[in-house]
Amino acid sequence: MILSRLQYPIVLAPLAGGPSTPALAAAVSGAGGLGFLAAGYLAAHEVRRNIHAVRYRTSAPFGVNVFVPGSPDVDERAVRAYVERLRAEAARYGTDVGEPRFDDDDWEAKLVVLHEERVPVVSFTFGCPPADVVASLRAAGSEVWATVTDVVEARIGRDAGVDVLVLQGTEAGGHRASFRDRDDGEGLGVLPLIRIVTAEIDLPLVAAGGIGDGAAVAAVLAAGASAAQIGTVFLPAPEAGTHPAHRAALAAERPTALTRAFSGRLARGLVNRFLVEHGSDAPSAYPHVHHATSPIRAAARDRGDADGFNLWAGQAHRLAKELPAAEIVRRLASEARVALEKAAARLGR
Amino acid sequence: MILSRLQYPIVLAPLAGGPSTPALAAAVSGAGGLGFLAAGYLAAHEVRRNIHAVRYRTSAPFGVNVFVPGSPDVDERAVRAYVERLRAEAARYGTDVGEPRFDDDDWEAKLVVLHEERVPVVSFTFGCPPADVVASLRAAGSEVWATVTDVVEARIGRDAGVDVLVLQGTEAGGHRASFRDRDDGEGLGVLPLIRIVTAEIDLPLVAAGGIGDGAAVAAVLAAGASAAQIGTVFLPAPEAGTHPAHRAALAAERPTALTRAFSGRLARGLVNRFLVEHGSDAPSAYPHVHHATSPIRAAARDRGDADGFNLWAGQAHRLAKELPAAEIVRRLASEARVALEKAAARLGR
Repeated sequence: MILSRLQYPIVLAPLAGGPSTPALAAAVSGAGGLGFLAAGYLAAHEVRRNIHAVRYRTSAPFGVNVFVPGSPDVDERAVRAYVERLRAEAARYGTDVGEPRFDDDDWEAKLVVLHEERVPVVSFTFGCPPADVVASLRAAGSEVWATVTDVVEARIGRDAGVDVLVLQGTEAGGHRASFRDRDDGEGLGVLPLIRIVTAEIDLPLVAAGGIGDGAAVAAVLAAGASAAQIGTVFLPAPEAGTHPAHRAALAAERPTALTRAFSGRLARGLVNRFLVEHGSDAPSAYPHVHHATSPIRAAARDRGDADGFNLWAGQAHRLAKELPAAEIVRRLASEARVALEKAAARLGR
Repeated sequence: MILSRLQYPIVLAPLAGGPSTPALAAAVSGAGGLGFLAAGYLAAHEVRRNIHAVRYRTSAPFGVNVFVPGSPDVDERAVRAYVERLRAEAARYGTDVGEPRFDDDDWEAKLVVLHEERVPVVSFTFGCPPADVVASLRAAGSEVWATVTDVVEARIGRDAGVDVLVLQGTEAGGHRASFRDRDDGEGLGVLPLIRIVTAEIDLPLVAAGGIGDGAAVAAVLAAGASAAQIGTVFLPAPEAGTHPAHRAALAAERPTALTRAFSGRLARGLVNRFLVEHGSDAPSAYPHVHHATSPIRAAARDRGDADGFNLWAGQAHRLAKELPAAEIVRRLASEARVALEKAAARLGR
């Protein structure tokens, strides 16, 4: 079990869509945590290149996160209506709306790469692959992790034979990892999620969602997680590919919200103009909406306009500081140690 | 500071609307935690009687929680439309819809009682009283706590001079304590809430929301809280006034949701028929809707029909077990101790 061999129980979140870089993954792994590469939105050959780039930088274990394909069936009429809305956005940024279409994010080809590359950890988001896929990745030498948001998904992961469950609370930045995009009345926080899953399922757990500093790492360890998976805290690191306008927005006192405006799937980001104006109209249609907004987001990024693209961020974003990734890993661990000592003193009365 | 003199850092949540009893508050205080009485929905003279009943049972400190009055101004048309919807519910249970009306929950008279009784801790929900009220309660010998759900409310509490902030995460059962009833896109989880407030405000913090067992207590202590405030775990205790149909529903695998269906203010409860059928139509109008649904809820309770009244519950409800309240306090503390030791071992590598 790779988790039990890590120097620090700190796992980098995948951070698909820009911030993920081989340099960031390698820095976290090299510092004694577990770095992750995002395979999402990339072609299989790009994933392979990134795996090689991590291995060039470090011999430490790392993981690759893959999006499980969803269904091509969406409410076409709702998608068309949303595309019409987006035309004014596209005009604003001097571009066109993208074609709303389904794709499987190069699923089969990515599985081939992962088998061939024998990546130490393969984690999944948006679903759990069937037991035979899990078994063949394990046979190739990988540990397999499934990301889940409730106990029903946790059972599916366990029954498929995964080694580790990543429990994503509603506090998390970026996409909800839910197996289906749903209106999430429950929206389990990471603490109750850890406790409910622990009561029923005997697998190592990695906790994700709103973990913004070492005291929060200590909290999820105390709750029973074997490690904390952290994304937003690493977004300001120089090794990350985070857009400068995104970096600047993170430190501000700005609320986050869950929205489908950018991708057609619920995701948590900083509230900005695009999210406010389109958040309540965006249909559940992933990756259709992702493709439709793609040229708009690219054009807004080119202009450095933080009101025109997705600023994924977890609820504790304002605690993120610009530091080298290895320094972040070490700080999180030392803060966590202090936090546990203080808590024990408080309870020791 | 009463928090620093408690044997165990366990605070009973107020549990207004039925479960709160003097016996429950006294049992938690007597066991070394801090019991609470709910003043909400009661007349001032009933609050005084309950305070005397706690003091008859224990000499340990305890608290009283008070609802801060809101505004009488609501969308009258939306309230009338909702009342029309409720007529079928009333007929179903052989009763009438109540009169939707504003009241201030006997605010001034309750403040008089609290001053005269010199209650050890007075906590507030739905707002923070002005600085002069806080100061006069403190002068009378009470500690004053404000319940908050974000950093803006935390600043208001600090500026009003309160001694302690209770931080309520979105995981919590019952009413959101927000100063205004709002659609809560952010819905801060208790962990990021603790960390964000800690980074800015130097007051003792009590954490609330989805804390379902001792490991979760350990988690919020590790995150920096001085104590955990816990409600749902105590609902099955024999000392609680929890309705039998509510008790039976708690242990089931049933999701919770935030709803205005019962009271006109966002609150988290187990999903049942009433919540599903009316949740998306209920206006923000508290306590108007509370009074309108009151006879319906009473009639459903009389019939033992868990689909017709509010089953407030936090996200970790299924961890609640039927045990005497004092035993629950001791278990939470001993589980927390074990959890912190395990976490320290995990981090010690």
